[in-house]
Amino acid sequence: MSAIEELAEDRVVEGVYAVASKRRLRTRNGADYLALELVDPSGRIEGRVWNDVELLDARFDEGDAVRVLGRVERFRDRLQLEVRSIEAAPEADPGALAPAMRRDPDELDGFLDFLAAEITHQRLRATVASFVGDPSIRARLRELPAAPDGHHDYAGGLLEHTVGVATLCRELAQIHPRLRSDLLLAAALLHDLGRTVELGRGPVYKQTDEGRLLGHVHLGLRLIEERARGLDDSTQAELLHAVAVHHDARAARTAEAAVLYHANQLDAVAATKPVGEP
Amino acid sequence: MSAIEELAEDRVVEGVYAVASKRRLRTRNGADYLALELVDPSGRIEGRVWNDVELLDARFDEGDAVRVLGRVERFRDRLQLEVRSIEAAPEADPGALAPAMRRDPDELDGFLDFLAAEITHQRLRATVASFVGDPSIRARLRELPAAPDGHHDYAGGLLEHTVGVATLCRELAQIHPRLRSDLLLAAALLHDLGRTVELGRGPVYKQTDEGRLLGHVHLGLRLIEERARGLDDSTQAELLHAVAVHHDARAARTAEAAVLYHANQLDAVAATKPVGEP
Amino acid sequence: MSAIEELAEDRVVEGVYAVASKRRLRTRNGADYLALELVDPSGRIEGRVWNDVELLDARFDEGDAVRVLGRVERFRDRLQLEVRSIEAAPEADPGALAPAMRRDPDELDGFLDFLAAEITHQRLRATVASFVGDPSIRARLRELPAAPDGHHDYAGGLLEHTVGVATLCRELAQIHPRLRSDLLLAAALLHDLGRTVELGRGPVYKQTDEGRLLGHVHLGLRLIEERARGLDDSTQAELLHAVAVHHDARAARTAEAAVLYHANQLDAVAATKPVGEP
Amino acid sequence: MSAIEELAEDRVVEGVYAVASKRRLRTRNGADYLALELVDPSGRIEGRVWNDVELLDARFDEGDAVRVLGRVERFRDRLQLEVRSIEAAPEADPGALAPAMRRDPDELDGFLDFLAAEITHQRLRATVASFVGDPSIRARLRELPAAPDGHHDYAGGLLEHTVGVATLCRELAQIHPRLRSDLLLAAALLHDLGRTVELGRGPVYKQTDEGRLLGHVHLGLRLIEERARGLDDSTQAELLHAVAVHHDARAARTAEAAVLYHANQLDAVAATKPVGEP
Amino acid sequence: MSAIEELAEDRVVEGVYAVASKRRLRTRNGADYLALELVDPSGRIEGRVWNDVELLDARFDEGDAVRVLGRVERFRDRLQLEVRSIEAAPEADPGALAPAMRRDPDELDGFLDFLAAEITHQRLRATVASFVGDPSIRARLRELPAAPDGHHDYAGGLLEHTVGVATLCRELAQIHPRLRSDLLLAAALLHDLGRTVELGRGPVYKQTDEGRLLGHVHLGLRLIEERARGLDDSTQAELLHAVAVHHDARAARTAEAAVLYHANQLDAVAATKPVGEP
Amino acid sequence: MSAIEELAEDRVVEGVYAVASKRRLRTRNGADYLALELVDPSGRIEGRVWNDVELLDARFDEGDAVRVLGRVERFRDRLQLEVRSIEAAPEADPGALAPAMRRDPDELDGFLDFLAAEITHQRLRATVASFVGDPSIRARLRELPAAPDGHHDYAGGLLEHTVGVATLCRELAQIHPRLRSDLLLAAALLHDLGRTVELGRGPVYKQTDEGRLLGHVHLGLRLIEERARGLDDSTQAELLHAVAVHHDARAARTAEAAVLYHANQLDAVAATKPVGEP
Repeated sequence: MSAIEELAEDRVVEGVYAVASKRRLRTRNGADYLALELVDPSGRIEGRVWNDVELLDARFDEGDAVRVLGRVERFRDRLQLEVRSIEAAPEADPGALAPAMRRDPDELDGFLDFLAAEITHQRLRATVASFVGDPSIRARLRELPAAPDGHHDYAGGLLEHTVGVATLCRELAQIHPRLRSDLLLAAALLHDLGRTVELGRGPVYKQTDEGRLLGHVHLGLRLIEERARGLDDSTQAELLHAVAVHHDARAARTAEAAVLYHANQLDAVAATKPVGEP
Repeated sequence: MSAIEELAEDRVVEGVYAVASKRRLRTRNGADYLALELVDPSGRIEGRVWNDVELLDARFDEGDAVRVLGRVERFRDRLQLEVRSIEAAPEADPGALAPAMRRDPDELDGFLDFLAAEITHQRLRATVASFVGDPSIRARLRELPAAPDGHHDYAGGLLEHTVGVATLCRELAQIHPRLRSDLLLAAALLHDLGRTVELGRGPVYKQTDEGRLLGHVHLGLRLIEERARGLDDSTQAELLHAVAVHHDARAARTAEAAVLYHANQLDAVAATKPVGEP
Repeated sequence: MSAIEELAEDRVVEGVYAVASKRRLRTRNGADYLALELVDPSGRIEGRVWNDVELLDARFDEGDAVRVLGRVERFRDRLQLEVRSIEAAPEADPGALAPAMRRDPDELDGFLDFLAAEITHQRLRATVASFVGDPSIRARLRELPAAPDGHHDYAGGLLEHTVGVATLCRELAQIHPRLRSDLLLAAALLHDLGRTVELGRGPVYKQTDEGRLLGHVHLGLRLIEERARGLDDSTQAELLHAVAVHHDARAARTAEAAVLYHANQLDAVAATKPVGEP
Repeated sequence: MSAIEELAEDRVVEGVYAVASKRRLRTRNGADYLALELVDPSGRIEGRVWNDVELLDARFDEGDAVRVLGRVERFRDRLQLEVRSIEAAPEADPGALAPAMRRDPDELDGFLDFLAAEITHQRLRATVASFVGDPSIRARLRELPAAPDGHHDYAGGLLEHTVGVATLCRELAQIHPRLRSDLLLAAALLHDLGRTVELGRGPVYKQTDEGRLLGHVHLGLRLIEERARGLDDSTQAELLHAVAVHHDARAARTAEAAVLYHANQLDAVAATKPVGEP
Repeated sequence: MSAIEELAEDRVVEGVYAVASKRRLRTRNGADYLALELVDPSGRIEGRVWNDVELLDARFDEGDAVRVLGRVERFRDRLQLEVRSIEAAPEADPGALAPAMRRDPDELDGFLDFLAAEITHQRLRATVASFVGDPSIRARLRELPAAPDGHHDYAGGLLEHTVGVATLCRELAQIHPRLRSDLLLAAALLHDLGRTVELGRGPVYKQTDEGRLLGHVHLGLRLIEERARGLDDSTQAELLHAVAVHHDARAARTAEAAVLYHANQLDAVAATKPVGEP
Repeated sequence: MSAIEELAEDRVVEGVYAVASKRRLRTRNGADYLALELVDPSGRIEGRVWNDVELLDARFDEGDAVRVLGRVERFRDRLQLEVRSIEAAPEADPGALAPAMRRDPDELDGFLDFLAAEITHQRLRATVASFVGDPSIRARLRELPAAPDGHHDYAGGLLEHTVGVATLCRELAQIHPRLRSDLLLAAALLHDLGRTVELGRGPVYKQTDEGRLLGHVHLGLRLIEERARGLDDSTQAELLHAVAVHHDARAARTAEAAVLYHANQLDAVAATKPVGEP
């Protein structure tokens, strides 16, 4: 059994991977083939099925775990897996096969608890705790990417990005004492909460219907409104406002909302290779 | 002698301030008057000279220290000083009368030294040290704003902003190990170096002719090129690149340059009241 | 007692109006004065208080009904009221003095009921009915403008605009049978519902704190979510989506959402004088 | 003989279609093939010629009617016609084979006459009548799309879009009495007149040389100027202005021009599937 | 009689000028006054009427020639004329009093004839000649500015700009032989022809009603279409295209049209002081 | 031996060309091939290696001169060379094989000397002479394109573009006497100087590492700063400013800088085929 990051050119491989995407295409001279993206916790690799397409295509769907036999070849400077045989592997959990972050999730969970405990405003801390203390939310943070096809696009990227943005915001509140640190920290910890409702399971992370129509920003606001009943109206509005505009700098009406916008940008950029970098 | 931040409505005041701006205007019914911005380390106040304009106008220039006798009145929710008598105060240093930052400059200087010492790459540390160890540069950092008419627009704002951006970049390099922390930290510490050549003395901080034509970005690059002779070409180009694009995100070709752009934005935004905030 | 639309140059006037805005300014030669916007159901006029400013300023606030004695003069092609005496008129209802629309509100209410009854989808009709059948909502539609300082900026403008957009959407569903007419009509009738929570009473229509931070779009979504419990998730998401993007065409994911955006634009433009029109 | 909308997978087909586009491509391994878009009044289908390419290519041109023998296959969720034999069918009229609108053209022609008769301003009505009463113009409206490769991209789309925009404008003039309804309705009916000169015959609708260089907006203005001699200068300028800016909202100087711009947008959007709709 | 460019501070002046603009304003303490822009061929000066406003205002209109008695004062670094007496001077021609260009108009007329004679394509030369040889067009070129409130904003600016753009285009055709020089030169000479219909007489140069609604680009196209009957359709379309897009680079479909756009920009920029220049 | 511009369909060819680009691709059915861009002074042609790919690929690199045997075929309206045999030709100089300009380089060199001699300001002329009189700079101007993948993308394009922009600027200084002609001409002659450091040898013209990070604008400024020591600070700043903003019109602070920006645009556009031109 071969981890994807260990695959090397010209090797014959047998492994269990998850199918992150599957498209049926056709060569210019009329033959059908399958173009796959195969993943496991160690990485990603393109796969191609050139033969027995009709037969093999029927054996698995996008999102399935599969058992694959093939040969690794080099194409345009990247490795590619020429698949000889492939079949569903129902005994494996495809969600557990999604590419994982490199950082230690327990350490990140510890940071998250630490940051949530830094909030001194009692009701804001309680509001944040109602999410951070919810095991199903915590499990989703470790499972999901921060932005599929964007930055932190691996399982646990959502946890990593949440901790990254909140860490930056905590630092900023120390550098700039005029900022309301409790409000800023709470908003940072909850800003991408809506992702937990917007996205389906790995390795595909397909948007739910609600996710596609309403987006993670509105879904996050709805979640906060449902659980933040203890907050006074004014603090709740401030918190919702900062979350609401975290993708729209011009709509920011408070310093904390503007800062959250830019901290979110900064952590995303720091995790992304710029255009033109070799 | 009255500090500006202690002025109150309906009080008669005598004080020594610096003239941050001076314009001669005329009322709609034909009378000339002077509109002044007066400053001292504690703050700013508008001043108006309604009488003896011809005489008083000849006594002082923009940028001078002046001795003022007047009365504080309220106009559109702000205090204003109605000037009865004003004359140059050549014994006072106008640069020392510019509004000052509230944070302790010695503490900030300590942070600056600490951050410069964090650089482990020997030649980058030496390049940074050639500026951070230069007493005239250090004096300028404590004297100048980061961006006149923009964020951190008081004496020492340049030191405060430099420390703020470098602190954020140091934090980011810890969250994102892929970033080259020495390069990022060096670029952060030097990114606004050109301000020391671009701007004249307080309280006016007028652009020099070179400053107006070449801007602080190019002037900073020139300074680094003059002193960074010890650096290998490749590291020097990386450092210059990050400084060169710190106002132009799309031109960034390296992760560190992109991160510096956004860290600079973030610290500036955190120091600025957003539009619409009451 | 003089209606504002009947005021003529060089006439002495006595009337009861509401104060839509009040600012204390000062002439260039140092005298305070009050700049007012006075309104009644027939129109608007600028007012100026040049004398006894201290005394008269203390007698009333922005938003009050006032009794005014003054003289109408012409200034830069517009009439202006030079106020000689002014005092609060607590017996009058300032909300009832806001400028009113010219169209018959009962007729518009009839159109609104007719359009709401056109929806054949049972649960969408019920959702719309929970708002259209709510007397307090109906009263707000007749009291509020559609967009203060924008289009339909008079009492009842919200009702007029809601009927206008829904009428256009009904016509469009007939021209383009592919559109889902029930969804489109329901979204059109509810698209500006959040205004009823965002804005305070006339004639000032000041944003509430929540209104300033969350905006009428989000406040409308929250209202619909609270009352649309009977809708299946999918229909609710479609309805919320169309309301959510009615100011952001690029975010539209359905034909109905895109059409609502443009119908809203079109009705607003049709009610507004273009730049440059004499 | 098989209508395109009735074609089904795995069926052998014989039919007469028009060639909306024809490109000679080459497979990656060096074999030439033809990629066709075939149309008839019921729809569109992609065609591929894999064999005897040299021979078959010489038999017909883009825009011709052709007799085709082939087999329908499914490729990437869409049907495609694998062509075995193809030859020109000179007895068929390719213009008559362009995809047609689904709405009844006689009914739309009736609406057009009704709308043109609604204009009460005598000379505007005469100007509009000089086009609406011209049989060659009427024939072109039934033959042409509103915007090739855009909205209403089928024969008669131009008629359908003209009626749609004019219907919306008539409704708007009723909702907003301040609009000059005769001017608005005339401009709506004539706004895309230039398409009749810009575009060649179906099914290709290729731009004429003049169409490519001058565009349908200018060509429409020229047509109106040639026939609107009876109009007074002022009304003619108003009419030309509204037509001239119907793709450029910022240039609108009258309410009617601004409304026409947005009504045109709205009808186009209502006829187009938004990005992201499944 | 004093030419405006010779006026000096503190001098009493008597002169005949034209009124380029006239507005009735009011001081903050309630007194009306007139704000004038007075011009003669040598320059411009602001004028103010503080006394006898009612009486003097009735004596002349914007666009009139006036006889003025006043005193020159300095206000905010500019000279201003305090008017003591002013009356219409019907014996003077206000158009002849508009500020004039500094270059010799006869020399420019010579260049214009030279450039028009450089066109070798017979029918293009004839088309251009039908305008360049028209005395009323030639008179307008010497009377009008190129862009009122923009570049070349003095009498004859239109002639100067036309010669400037055509000279650049002739040079470009020599540097870049691929350009069709006759087409480019003809389009350059005619590109602002529409100004002769768009603008009224100096010194006000007010847009005509047609000018406001149709703009100089369309009015120029109409003029060319009226006189270019001798041109073949293809050449005419190329010529019209280049003129049509001379304010819209993205619409250019030919190299000559793109070049004309940029040559027009360049000559306008070369005649305009940039923002920020002292 | 066949020059590329003389190649014709269906001919067998033997020639020595340079490899401007080389990519290894794969057909849809799995076979590797090489896609080449081959150049010689007379032009460019696409090449394809379908057979013996492994063997032939190892024989040469991008940027090499190669000896080729093949057959010319037509593909999608363009000629293409089907390569049968290819090998490095180390005796040929690949730089000398880059596509060359059509204009006479000696004539252009003459123009360059003439333009440089037109500068009357002694120190500006000396500064320009230090580059124009430098044989290695002159050789680079004849070797390099003005903008690889952009306008003037052939050997000597840099010389041609430099002469073109300077010629336009000289003409402009004659039309607009207010421009400082010496400054403008010097800036025009030096504006793209940085290209000589940014780009590697032909036919690939790959950016150096410094070129990629610092760009030709900054590299040009550095060169001028190194050699312009004789200039007074003020003139040097004006010269550097104009070069610095020649890609950023909004940053221009002087008329000469704004004019250089637009002259650069104009010469580039005049050398480029517009989108949509057949």
